[in-house]
Amino acid sequence: MSDLEIRPAALEDIPAIVAMLADDQLGAQRESPDDLTPYAAALELLAQDPNQYQAVAVRADRVVGTLQLTIIHGLSRRGSTRSIIEGVRIHADERGSGLGTRLIEWAIDESRRRDCQLVQLTSDASRTDARRFYERLGFTPSHIGFKLQL
Amino acid sequence: MSDLEIRPAALEDIPAIVAMLADDQLGAQRESPDDLTPYAAALELLAQDPNQYQAVAVRADRVVGTLQLTIIHGLSRRGSTRSIIEGVRIHADERGSGLGTRLIEWAIDESRRRDCQLVQLTSDASRTDARRFYERLGFTPSHIGFKLQL
Repeated sequence: MSDLEIRPAALEDIPAIVAMLADDQLGAQRESPDDLTPYAAALELLAQDPNQYQAVAVRADRVVGTLQLTIIHGLSRRGSTRSIIEGVRIHADERGSGLGTRLIEWAIDESRRRDCQLVQLTSDASRTDARRFYERLGFTPSHIGFKLQL
Repeated sequence: MSDLEIRPAALEDIPAIVAMLADDQLGAQRESPDDLTPYAAALELLAQDPNQYQAVAVRADRVVGTLQLTIIHGLSRRGSTRSIIEGVRIHADERGSGLGTRLIEWAIDESRRRDCQLVQLTSDASRTDARRFYERLGFTPSHIGFKLQL
């Protein structure tokens, strides 16, 4: 397999990112690949924010993975900084290739580089494979993740 | 009881905020109320960030509650914006007074005002009262919250 590059997402990556967001048991009902306007607007907001990193993994000029890394300063834990990982997606052709591990390890390294003391993420409890995956990477499933739709 | 005000935290609120962070079963081991320097540095970073709101609840000139609200733009769910609530603390004298509910309801209203479609938070699974509290406020405990210390 050719080399993998992990870099910030650009506008032209949006169709590939949205296709991955939608090609998912939960994402299928939530996304609108036929109208990319709201995604482009969101990426523009992220690109201006130094605490945001929308990453894509690219192999042979093809976007094969994505995640969003957010850096959050805070008072608790002696003014420590944490990062939050959201929207992890791996292209169907690449699942089981170890790309998920490489992408999360990249996010952990980037969090360390940004002086974070903690990396956190939530995963829908129905994603049973995800739980094993994150535990293998050293994450502790110590918390309950609550959501409220507005 | 006199009126409650919810407003952005100022530097002079830090001793009261840190005292509340430390007066907690989990926070007791994590905080350093004797050295406020890292907290002041963190608050300065938050104050410059339009996506951050470190809130304090004040009654009769006394800080009696705090939480951190972070606004996160993102691509998933059609470019939707979510908010994350962290570090919710209520002064021991005010627990059971309904202040926690008012503070979370304030955060939900503020999230709506900032065009969020989702509010999320994680709570340590050992905080059994917190689970009932958030469910009563309409939150769904649908996710597992993973943490990795760096």
